[in-house]
Amino acid sequence: MDTRCINFGAGPSALPPSVLEEACKGLINFEGTGMGIAEISHRSKEFVALLARLEANIRTQLQVPQTHAILFMQGGGTGQFSSIVMNMLARHRLLQPHLADHERAMDYVVTGAWSKKAAAEAQRLGGGVVHIAADARPYSKDSKSFDNIPTHDSYSFSPDPALIFYCENETIDGVQFAYDGASPASFPFHLLKKDALLPLVADYSSSFMSRPIPRLADHAIIYAGAQKNIGPAGLTIAIVRQDCIVDVDAAAKLGAAPVPITMAYKTVFDGASLYNTPPVIPIYMAGLVLQRMAEQGGLKHYEEVNKRKAAKLYAVIGKGEAKGVLLAKVRPDAGSWMNVVFDALGEGAEARFVEGATARNMKSIKGHRSVGGIRISLYNAVTEEQTDELVAYMEEFIASAEPATIKV
Amino acid sequence: MDTRCINFGAGPSALPPSVLEEACKGLINFEGTGMGIAEISHRSKEFVALLARLEANIRTQLQVPQTHAILFMQGGGTGQFSSIVMNMLARHRLLQPHLADHERAMDYVVTGAWSKKAAAEAQRLGGGVVHIAADARPYSKDSKSFDNIPTHDSYSFSPDPALIFYCENETIDGVQFAYDGASPASFPFHLLKKDALLPLVADYSSSFMSRPIPRLADHAIIYAGAQKNIGPAGLTIAIVRQDCIVDVDAAAKLGAAPVPITMAYKTVFDGASLYNTPPVIPIYMAGLVLQRMAEQGGLKHYEEVNKRKAAKLYAVIGKGEAKGVLLAKVRPDAGSWMNVVFDALGEGAEARFVEGATARNMKSIKGHRSVGGIRISLYNAVTEEQTDELVAYMEEFIASAEPATIKV
Repeated sequence: MDTRCINFGAGPSALPPSVLEEACKGLINFEGTGMGIAEISHRSKEFVALLARLEANIRTQLQVPQTHAILFMQGGGTGQFSSIVMNMLARHRLLQPHLADHERAMDYVVTGAWSKKAAAEAQRLGGGVVHIAADARPYSKDSKSFDNIPTHDSYSFSPDPALIFYCENETIDGVQFAYDGASPASFPFHLLKKDALLPLVADYSSSFMSRPIPRLADHAIIYAGAQKNIGPAGLTIAIVRQDCIVDVDAAAKLGAAPVPITMAYKTVFDGASLYNTPPVIPIYMAGLVLQRMAEQGGLKHYEEVNKRKAAKLYAVIGKGEAKGVLLAKVRPDAGSWMNVVFDALGEGAEARFVEGATARNMKSIKGHRSVGGIRISLYNAVTEEQTDELVAYMEEFIASAEPATIKV
Repeated sequence: MDTRCINFGAGPSALPPSVLEEACKGLINFEGTGMGIAEISHRSKEFVALLARLEANIRTQLQVPQTHAILFMQGGGTGQFSSIVMNMLARHRLLQPHLADHERAMDYVVTGAWSKKAAAEAQRLGGGVVHIAADARPYSKDSKSFDNIPTHDSYSFSPDPALIFYCENETIDGVQFAYDGASPASFPFHLLKKDALLPLVADYSSSFMSRPIPRLADHAIIYAGAQKNIGPAGLTIAIVRQDCIVDVDAAAKLGAAPVPITMAYKTVFDGASLYNTPPVIPIYMAGLVLQRMAEQGGLKHYEEVNKRKAAKLYAVIGKGEAKGVLLAKVRPDAGSWMNVVFDALGEGAEARFVEGATARNMKSIKGHRSVGGIRISLYNAVTEEQTDELVAYMEEFIASAEPATIKV
């Protein structure tokens, strides 16, 4: 284990070493069955129990009410871009069969690359009309980038949409809705219709299980790929309110688009997430991660640690800004706890920053190719001690750097 | 490793112990990167190289021509039930935009539970008409079960179908097309139109990489879930001829159903199977399995071993039949090399058979719940020695058993 680096990657990303060690045992011989976890039937009592424990652990820690099912799927967030549209349009069709496609609004709140992609997929699939309920770009410092969460007065929701989508944390842009509901950068729940059946859909891919989910029970669907905070890539978790688990075939008879069987929430729900062979290793490892979380004090503990980690990192970026050496890419109230993005200012500074980090065994810190700069991901498996090491390095970097001539 | 059982499970199923041991190292620290394989970016040069090696290994061993792409997807065989329909109907629409939906035939050869399910999904999705080109059930011993491959004169193909589907090996029923092209139980390639663009689709889920694929180049699509011969569940491999990688959005403009973006072969192909985050551990482990196969002499070696394993097992079943103790469920010329299904005859015989096997550390031998009896899966990771141990046990079982009063 001492040959491992400090991994600030955005995903697939760091996992707890103790989980990896346990997983190695399970790969060879799972719970004394004489078979590895990848070799056991997904219908065996051992695997079914494992899946039930994972579900219970998520339900307890996130306080998911019984109104909502927890489904285990494949295809990642990108797969859900399609699933949410097809299932929610089917639901809308069943509720209001008389409407024409152009009367079925799909409200998208666009605050970064992923919500933009989600809206594009809804547009591609058709069967309704995409309405951009808010767009952060006009409010950015250059009028075209994603560096903020728009204030509440900039939203316009449709009266009765098939779905309302937002991406709680934008992994690429480092933008996250403020956790404090009183912040102008929080999600504007108060602007939505008071409705127990609100079609509110949230992409939590890169913040799932990093802190409690505000107003969870008001959501129709919350989904996440596993490969950030809770496990290896290949597993997708969808928390779906029961009224959104609809008979897509009945909706198709009324004119809705046919839904591939693995993407219909009803198939997954009816089959207890075992309709078809599930991704057994990712499920197993997510189970180990969730179990470890429970042992360490649950989500509350991670919330506190994650808050401190982010605060320390933003504080040192602030110091760098004061000296003209670093520049945060995102407006302070919209800065993500999970993905912290900034620039090192001046000729060759970014390369120097990366080089110094690499020399200290810190890896995967380059920003996404579409935005550049530095991106530090502080997922659950990144410890506070590792964050402190980074902060110490950044203090050094700032102290030794010549202030750049900033042209902003 | 000596605590492991002999695993005859139908999938997820046995993997080579040496692969599991290597995977444990890779989970902790992959190729000296300081990160485990689950923690490394799928866009890193290390992962991209790994994926390229896996593809090359499949291409070389199966002799996949350059006319065909090899795609890595999620969702298993069940996901492909939808993908093949949507992509091939889109292709048909682009080729022949003027046809009505009811003029787009989809030919299904139904020889077992999986091909039946595949046809049902095509029916569900619509956009064309399912035509059952052949059905094995009327030719079975009870006129309703899947115990045979129908003879060539029982097929009727449509003149210009959007797709022609067959499932090469039926995991549940233990039925497989004969490997010898001269057998009446072989797939009737000679009945198909001579056409370089034949829309022939084969589900190879449970026989992929167990032996060469007859007439591979004549197929439009060949797909397989990884969880039988080559790796853990969560990875799907699709070999797709270039003309079947079509612009599904252009087809949708002509009236084809919209295709979810992760299910469109074009998205996967254009993104080199990295459009969205792939299932990294299953890909990694499949890579290890394929590498090991290459080292052991490649597919030719496995073909020979698999042929011997199956022959030995069918021979001992034959002995049991002669004594009235066992009964093969499948007609001899249609018996699968991979999944061998039979009954132990007489009151309590099946339970006794399972108990004796369990006492010898042999596991996962019960038949699928829908068909009962015994099922022995002889995937690549089941060694000839393990098969010999089973055969020896069966010899003992037969020798010691009282012949049952068979009522057939």
